[in-house]
Amino acid sequence: MFKKFQVEDLVQETDSKIVMLVMDGVGDIPHPDYDFKTPLEAAKTPNMDKLTEKSVLGRIVPVHYGITPGSGPGHLGLFGYDPRNYTLGRGVMEALGLDIQMFPSDVAARGNFVTMDKNGIILNRRGGKGEEARLTTEESTERVKLLSEKVKKILSIEILLTPGLDHRFVAIFRGREIRANMTDADPQQTGKPISQIRALDSNSQISAQIANEFILRANKVLADFEYGNALVLRGFSKRPNWPTMKQRFKLDCCAIAEYPMYRGIAQILGMDKLAASSGAEEAFKTYVKNHDKYNFFFIHIKKTDSYGESGLFEEKVKVIEDVDSALPIILDKMPDTLVITGDHSTPVYMKGHSWHPVPILIHSDYCGTDQTKRFTENECNIGGLSTFPARHMMNLALANAMKLEKYGA
Amino acid sequence: MFKKFQVEDLVQETDSKIVMLVMDGVGDIPHPDYDFKTPLEAAKTPNMDKLTEKSVLGRIVPVHYGITPGSGPGHLGLFGYDPRNYTLGRGVMEALGLDIQMFPSDVAARGNFVTMDKNGIILNRRGGKGEEARLTTEESTERVKLLSEKVKKILSIEILLTPGLDHRFVAIFRGREIRANMTDADPQQTGKPISQIRALDSNSQISAQIANEFILRANKVLADFEYGNALVLRGFSKRPNWPTMKQRFKLDCCAIAEYPMYRGIAQILGMDKLAASSGAEEAFKTYVKNHDKYNFFFIHIKKTDSYGESGLFEEKVKVIEDVDSALPIILDKMPDTLVITGDHSTPVYMKGHSWHPVPILIHSDYCGTDQTKRFTENECNIGGLSTFPARHMMNLALANAMKLEKYGA
Repeated sequence: MFKKFQVEDLVQETDSKIVMLVMDGVGDIPHPDYDFKTPLEAAKTPNMDKLTEKSVLGRIVPVHYGITPGSGPGHLGLFGYDPRNYTLGRGVMEALGLDIQMFPSDVAARGNFVTMDKNGIILNRRGGKGEEARLTTEESTERVKLLSEKVKKILSIEILLTPGLDHRFVAIFRGREIRANMTDADPQQTGKPISQIRALDSNSQISAQIANEFILRANKVLADFEYGNALVLRGFSKRPNWPTMKQRFKLDCCAIAEYPMYRGIAQILGMDKLAASSGAEEAFKTYVKNHDKYNFFFIHIKKTDSYGESGLFEEKVKVIEDVDSALPIILDKMPDTLVITGDHSTPVYMKGHSWHPVPILIHSDYCGTDQTKRFTENECNIGGLSTFPARHMMNLALANAMKLEKYGA
Repeated sequence: MFKKFQVEDLVQETDSKIVMLVMDGVGDIPHPDYDFKTPLEAAKTPNMDKLTEKSVLGRIVPVHYGITPGSGPGHLGLFGYDPRNYTLGRGVMEALGLDIQMFPSDVAARGNFVTMDKNGIILNRRGGKGEEARLTTEESTERVKLLSEKVKKILSIEILLTPGLDHRFVAIFRGREIRANMTDADPQQTGKPISQIRALDSNSQISAQIANEFILRANKVLADFEYGNALVLRGFSKRPNWPTMKQRFKLDCCAIAEYPMYRGIAQILGMDKLAASSGAEEAFKTYVKNHDKYNFFFIHIKKTDSYGESGLFEEKVKVIEDVDSALPIILDKMPDTLVITGDHSTPVYMKGHSWHPVPILIHSDYCGTDQTKRFTENECNIGGLSTFPARHMMNLALANAMKLEKYGA
């Protein structure tokens, strides 16, 4: 019988430090309106250029070839959690994004306010008037407030609603007895009635009845509205109980991230969340301040992705340049391993996440070098790390920090 | 149900020849004291340069990204045996290294002479006087001799000891009844007593008692020494019974290797061991002499690794240059596939094995070419083979020798 190989068996606890600097969605493709350059190519990055000459470059495939990841899978891969196996439910992801604290037994669901006709047929999945309009955040908040007074509890299960952006909200079902293994109420198209929630195992049967009952009661309360007069739920899920990074890699980890979703993912993996900071400079200073307390620092820069999503080339370039300007703050307190990468690509030209492999740079005393001169997509193609699955990147981060024992004699 | 894909099903027996020239630990990283060159870059290699223009280059990952392999896993990967599944016990590896012939039922253990205080606490794991000193090979040999007279047998099980370097030795437990599935006696740290060996399955229970009894009796014999007055054992293991390369790939294999460990690994895979040879020239002549008798030749050059481990840059360069000078001996009797590579990297700067991917060159009539000009790490980064797991390399060697049938219609 073979003992399954796992890198965890080789990890030794050391004081050496790893910094993983994640520029969200940093990877890109050449933009026809900008001289067929990518933002990394267009950006002036003297500090990263200098670092590149002492580093190895490559590209990482976030989930799998051709697969466009969401933020959850993108980040899980970076931390060595295979995003094909470690999956976060939609409800949990939305709850993390709204900074909702979940108990281990809580079940979260993503909610939408919708507009329904008299026969119970969904006319508008974004809850606005007519077929196109979208419910505003204010209107959602108003409805959540009303529901929070009128439908607080079903049997022993509390229901807590939190409004999100526009027509979105999160429902938490709280109570030791609640289970999550059930189908969605959201038919995900107009012209259909709300789906009956069905249990997918025998332990979830009462839970499904409770969820259906909640929707029934809530929709009675909402029925008086002209639009946004019903709600649907999907992605019932519990907070996962995964091995932490401490347990797997013997690392004391912290997350320096501004946005709740990334802080939430980090927390699930057992990282401490440090004070939120806006912009690269503040984030890097937070690293320096906490240098002695941790040996793994996840630093998250959000705006590269935001501007990619908005199709704003120059703004994405500017964020990269800001990161580069602030980079000496890290370089002056050089960790044993410095990784610079992204969780996925967000090409400006595509205005959204994409499947393109993500540039990565690894620097350490033992990283070796290659012939690359700048941290760009094209240079990364010929770097010494080659192109490889993101989930193996933690191995390299650990190896470069001399945290892995030799395998076999 | 899917039938598992395996390359073995495509192998056809042919006369075509494969030479795998392994320069142990050849891969490296740029050295700051040598103009930031690697030994392969610094070496004058006119023959390999010329060959490179007619070959394809790449880099192989010995075990997994970031994993530093020992010699066993490094070589098993080269021969197409996934080193994450095919593992050799520590005892067996040590026995191979000392050229000890093992019967299939023998159990080998790695032994250390240690220095123990009166209360049975280990003070020095290398058996020397005080806390730092190391037992010499002569002192170990003396102790082994004594023990070989005093503790020859326990029940029906013979115990055969062979001294190794310094404080090391190998114990072979011989007898049909002995089993290997048991824990170590070596606590692997000072300040602790010798661990009781425990059986890990019910068939190994008597074996664990025998091993414990051996340690007890041996340590009574050793007790009169001032230091090196006890022994510990670890890595109990049997010679594996794996499918041979003949069985898997229909190859008649031989090993042209000087050092016992590599000859031993080759033997386990069913290779014939040819007369040991010192240096590249002799090794390559041995290939020519036996050209007609085999169709797979594993040629092992040890010193690239040795000088890497010792941190001797110029000496490592010299070994590479010697290999290059002698290379025409092979080229004049060109095999159908010639592979030049290493089992892992041993950067001079790190004085030890490392995780860095290993340069590889494949030449055949059908290999194609790429834009590379020299067999170096940087050129291999941009070669036509890309970077890939070492365990897939045998497929390419077989394919280039036209030994693989088409897969599917």
